[in-house]
Order: sequence, then C-alpha cells, then structure tokens
Amino acid sequence: MADRTTSRVASQADVSETNRSRILTHLHRHGVCSRAQIAKALGLTPAAVTKITARLIEAGVIRETGAPGGRNRRAIGLELAADAFHVIGVKFARSLVQVGVFDLNGTRLALETLPPVTDETVPRTVGEVRRTVAGLIERDPRIVAVGMAVPGPYLREVGRTALVSTMQGWRTVNFLDEFSGAFPAPVFIEQDARAGALAQTLFGASPAVATVTTATAADDTCLAYYLLGEGVGLGVVDHGRLVNGAQGTATEVGHISIDVNGRPCDCGNRGCLERYCSTPAIHAMVDDAGIVEGSAAMSHAQACRALFALAQEGDARARGLVREVGHAVGYGLVIIANAFNPSRIVIGDIVAEAGPLLLEAAREVMDERVIAEVTQATEVTASALPTDAAVLGAGAIAITRFLERPSAFLDLT
Amino acid sequence: MADRTTSRVASQADVSETNRSRILTHLHRHGVCSRAQIAKALGLTPAAVTKITARLIEAGVIRETGAPGGRNRRAIGLELAADAFHVIGVKFARSLVQVGVFDLNGTRLALETLPPVTDETVPRTVGEVRRTVAGLIERDPRIVAVGMAVPGPYLREVGRTALVSTMQGWRTVNFLDEFSGAFPAPVFIEQDARAGALAQTLFGASPAVATVTTATAADDTCLAYYLLGEGVGLGVVDHGRLVNGAQGTATEVGHISIDVNGRPCDCGNRGCLERYCSTPAIHAMVDDAGIVEGSAAMSHAQACRALFALAQEGDARARGLVREVGHAVGYGLVIIANAFNPSRIVIGDIVAEAGPLLLEAAREVMDERVIAEVTQATEVTASALPTDAAVLGAGAIAITRFLERPSAFLDLT
Repeated sequence: MADRTTSRVASQADVSETNRSRILTHLHRHGVCSRAQIAKALGLTPAAVTKITARLIEAGVIRETGAPGGRNRRAIGLELAADAFHVIGVKFARSLVQVGVFDLNGTRLALETLPPVTDETVPRTVGEVRRTVAGLIERDPRIVAVGMAVPGPYLREVGRTALVSTMQGWRTVNFLDEFSGAFPAPVFIEQDARAGALAQTLFGASPAVATVTTATAADDTCLAYYLLGEGVGLGVVDHGRLVNGAQGTATEVGHISIDVNGRPCDCGNRGCLERYCSTPAIHAMVDDAGIVEGSAAMSHAQACRALFALAQEGDARARGLVREVGHAVGYGLVIIANAFNPSRIVIGDIVAEAGPLLLEAAREVMDERVIAEVTQATEVTASALPTDAAVLGAGAIAITRFLERPSAFLDLT
Repeated sequence: MADRTTSRVASQADVSETNRSRILTHLHRHGVCSRAQIAKALGLTPAAVTKITARLIEAGVIRETGAPGGRNRRAIGLELAADAFHVIGVKFARSLVQVGVFDLNGTRLALETLPPVTDETVPRTVGEVRRTVAGLIERDPRIVAVGMAVPGPYLREVGRTALVSTMQGWRTVNFLDEFSGAFPAPVFIEQDARAGALAQTLFGASPAVATVTTATAADDTCLAYYLLGEGVGLGVVDHGRLVNGAQGTATEVGHISIDVNGRPCDCGNRGCLERYCSTPAIHAMVDDAGIVEGSAAMSHAQACRALFALAQEGDARARGLVREVGHAVGYGLVIIANAFNPSRIVIGDIVAEAGPLLLEAAREVMDERVIAEVTQATEVTASALPTDAAVLGAGAIAITRFLERPSAFLDLT
C-alpha cells in the first residue's frame, strides 16, 4: 500500500543495476548458490542470470566454485569474491576514533585506535584520520570505499552533528567538508546507530536464520538497532529501508522523553531516555549509590563494567541498580515498538554487556506496556556482534553501498 | 545511503509501470503539462513520453487539452482525466461510519453517514457498509477502487485492529475477511492517520506550494499527519514512503508515554499521549474543571467544541485548559520530531479546531525541547482540509493505489 519506492526507477540501466545488486546481495547473504538457484530465488530468467553473472565474474566480484548445497551435486556454484574488495570503517565517538579494514564478509583485516581525543585535539584528530585512511588506501589497492559512523543527531545534508553536548568537541567539524573528497575512494557517512542497524542486517543474523531468509525477506526486514553506550541511539530499517527523516535525524530515541517532568537534558528536553540508561547516566547512578569502590575516578565504560561484574557476582545492590537501568531500557523498547514496530530489536554497545539480568527487566516492561499482539511478535536480543566490533558498523555503511550500487565501484561497461 | 528500495524492480514491465505511474502522479500534482515538460521533469526521453501517454490517452486516463503554462503557447497540454475515475472512501470510527465518493482530484461527489454504531450493532453496520458500497458501485461504473480507513493500531496482515478499548466493538471484525473480496472493485485498508498522511500528500499542499514541487520533491516528501480526535494517531511519509513496521502498527504515537508514571491506559502503558490530548481525555478534563455547563451529558466532540468556543470568547479558564492541552500536543510534537524528523507536521481532526491558541502552546513546547536545527526546519500547521473531510483520507488510500499501479485498474495491454 502506498509504496512509492518504485517511482525512482525509470531506465533499463537502472534495471540492470538493480538485478546486479540483487544477485550480489543474495550471494552475500546465502554463500554459494548455483545460477539456477539464483534465478529461482530472485524471479529472474536463467538467461538473465547467465548474462549478468558473466559480467560480474569478469569484473572479479563473483567467481565459480564447488557445488552449492541442494540436490544437484553437479551444478557449478557461484560465490561472492568477498576477499577481493576491502572497505575502511571509521567510528567516531566523543573521545575515541577507531579505523578498521574489512572484507565484504565483515572479516576484520586491521584495526587502529587513534590517540584519545579531547575537545582541544579534535582538529589534530581530523588530520590523523585523513593520514591514516589515506595510508591504508595507498597500501591496499583492494580498498574501494570508506564508511564513517558518527554519533547522532547527524545532519546528513549539512555534514555535521547537531548541538548536543556529548559531541561538543566534534560539532565544529563538518564531516562532509573534511572527508568527502579527501581520498581516492568514495566516503559515506552515517549516524552510528544506523550503521549498527546496517551491520545487523548484513552480519547480525545467526547462520540458522540466514539460511531461511529469502530475497523477499531481505526487502521485508524490519529491524531496530538500539545502541546503549555513551549516548542512546537507534537505527531502524523499515521494510528494507533506513528511516532517515528530512534532515537525517530521525530515530533519535535518546532524546525522546520518558517523563516530561524528569531529568533535564542538554537538548532542551526533560526526562530524555538517554538520561536514564546511557553509560554517563549509569555512571552517575553508580557514584550516587556508592556501589563501586572508586567509581568516581573511572571512565563511564569502566564504571558500568564494574557494576555489571558486581551484579553477576550476586551483589544485591548492584543487581537492583542493573534492574532499574533495565526498566529504563524497557521504556525505550516501548517507544521503539510503538513508533517503529520492528520484528527484531537488537540491543548493542556497552550497556548490553550487562546480560540477561538487564535484558529480562527490559523485556518485562515491554511485555507489560505494549499491546499483546505487538510485543509477542517482537524479538529482543543482545547483539551477537562483539562490542569492540562497533567499528564494523562503519564498514557496513561502505559494504551496503557497494552491494547496492556495484557499477559505482566496478567497471561493468 | 543504504537505500534498498530499488531492489524490488526487476523487469521491463516494472519499468513501464513505474513510468506510467510517474507520469500520472506528475499530472495529478501539476495539472496541465506538455509532453516536453513531462519529459524534462521526469528525466524521460520525449519518445518514451509520447509512447506511454498515447497508451494512457487510449485508456481514457489522460487527455489532450489547451496549452499548458510556460513559454510555448502552441504546445498541446495533457491532463489527468480526474473525473473519469471515481473511488469510494469508507471511514470507520468507534461510533461513526461514513462513506464518500470522490474523483481522482478528491472532489467529493457523495457522502453518506451510516446510523450511529454501538458495540452491539457492529455486525449490522458491517452489513450496511457492504450494501452501501455495493450499491454505489452498481450505480456508478466509474468507481474503480475502495479505500477504507480504520483506527490504529491496525494489524495489516491479520486484518483487524489490535486490542485497545477505543474500538472495543470493532475488534472482533476482520476487515480483510469482511470486505476484501466483497465488491467488484478492489479494497485497500489503512490505519486512519496513515490515510490522513496520504490525503495531505495528495491534496494538502497549498496551490503555491504545489507549483514549486517537482517530481523529485515528491519522492522526498517527509510529512507527518498528527491526528487528534477520539484517539491520537500518526501517519508518517518518510522520503515518499509510509513508515509501516513489521505488522503495520508503526507510528502509534498515541501510546507512547510522556510520563512512565502517568495516567494508566488500556494498552497496558502509563502516561500515553492519548490520555492527555484526545477528545475523551479533554472531555474528562472539561468535566473535572466544570468549565462547560452540562458537559457531562455531551459527546466528546461537543464538549471539546464548547471548550474551544469559550476559549475563543476569551474565557480565562477555558483558555488555560486549551493551553494545557496544547502543551500535551507539544510533547507529542517533540516525540514526532525526534522519532521521524519530518519537514512538515500537519495537525488534524477535532482537536485541531481549537486553532492558534492550542497550536502556539504546542509549538512553544516543541521549540523549547527539540534541538534548534531540527525545530527550525520543521513546519507545523493545522490541516487545511476540513475536519469532516476525514473520509477523504479513506478515498486517498484508493487514489494513491490507482496512481501507483495503474495497470491494475486500466486495460493497458
């Protein structure tokens, strides 16, 4: 109903590109497939598949391999040449910038953590990112694109993060101006939780899930990545497409209020979700309660991890506080379910490390406060990707673009 | 970025359909255009436009007319034959069902209000809707489709509204089972605020705005329709596409909490926005404050309208209450801006009748609580469509479908 998506496509060239993208995405998702399997799964004629795959083999992005799964053991399999193309992912946080190199399967080939950033050293860090990325591209000719993940709210057309304190030092930086033309490879920039949603879409499903997923299901993906870290962020894929908003600042769940008379927030609102379950908020609660010895001197992440460790050891006060945070996380789940109705909510970043105790408290709130038909149909899990793989989200931005617009990266004429 | 929309299109037939849809939508939006203007606006070759429009003229959906605007006064204009095709819109509310007939321009040709519905008479009303619609189709061969608007949360695949009290009597009705195959014309069903968003997209722009809108801008539409009536609902178009969610129950803003310890709601949540600015909530506040004489015996709409009239006459207590409601409406604007970042929020239904006093109070809250970059870029207006035109939203569902999938309604082979 009211699906205006098709109105963008208007030429035979677009159709060819679309079918190339569908074949690459299918192989990315399913591994080795025969031409006949691809044709069947995507509703293409065998002749079309033969023609398109021939061109993609020539371009080196897919290759013939052993037999695929299924009955016909003599069929020739095709697979994505995932190691033939690399991408760079750059993850910006307030005080930490990481640069990773990945192949198309998300395998990490390199990871570099830049020196800690303070508000004063931001310009220097920008220079270091430029040099680091340029050096990587120079040494690795397989690198075809750069993805960058920045904290939200990120004003996509303007190129900078909006005026919220967690990124004070960064908000003078125009990411588009600084980076978009800086390298021989194209640069794509996204808000970090959107990058996380893309990473979950590409790499987050367990193999069992991936097997039953069809090409149609990929278009029907309704997934939310709920980032609980230094900030609280959200990325939503609705029926295969990111929810962006006019300026690119949609899905800013961290600044939705759970209590309009609650704790004041730098964004101007009161009772913002972020004030109850981000790492700085948890750190403040840990300090107030005096639960973790010496917590005042710790970083936010350290204080949170110390709390979670105490809770896992059975400390009653720590468990109580983790449950309290879990309830706040649950109020966020209620917002996400009502606003976006995803079939799957993946919780990621540091706060997700608290584990089942937090997740169960959050789920209780959701089950109590969301209508039965919706909460029963919504899966909530902690991310299966490791926390320090957050930089993979930045890589996923570039990989997604590569799979969607192959002709921008390959010579397919 | 990460725009997977094109992956659905795979054949030449799809391309043709897409281009037909784009041409019809362009003419719907812009009125009379020459073939050259269409080609330029949509990036099509003149030959393609000539071929496609010839077929559409044969099918009777467009026709040649006088000269279009612009310099070339001798060019032949094309226009949509908006009066050659009619649609039916059926709007379901708890106690009121209206049936309207519209042409493609949204001109209302007939309106019928069925007898008031109670929980007991729902089955009878279903029968009456069937008879009324069937009768209209029998008498008017131009009718090509039926749109139905139902209160949310509407479970799109299941065909019924979810378990929330405002539709108690209706929740046993499966709309898909009752209506989808009931008529010679196809039936399309949507949640009512989504229908409102479609109506705003098709008919809500002022003529001045419509003139500068280009085909690209149509794809870039980011609009929210914020329905403030017996329930509080929301329909969001993000970059030209409705936000639906996995089950079709996304954008259920009425059940997002503005205070997790607030007024209990039948959905299981507490402090739901709906409990502060829907007509039943306002009615209860009016009764409690004793502002309107005899309000307890009034309908919700009557009590609200009496309050608004008193406020407009300058009654201080009435003005205070309207401002209080306006603040709650504003908390909703804050949620909408953070969650969906539309460029335009249109407030509709009965509560919008309160006028500038309410709108200004709501806007104050939004300006205070949403980051400057976003609130400054967000237009908030009351709907320019009359309240009793809500049934037009139901018609808009059918018109949208007609413009998007013309081959389903016309013989174009």
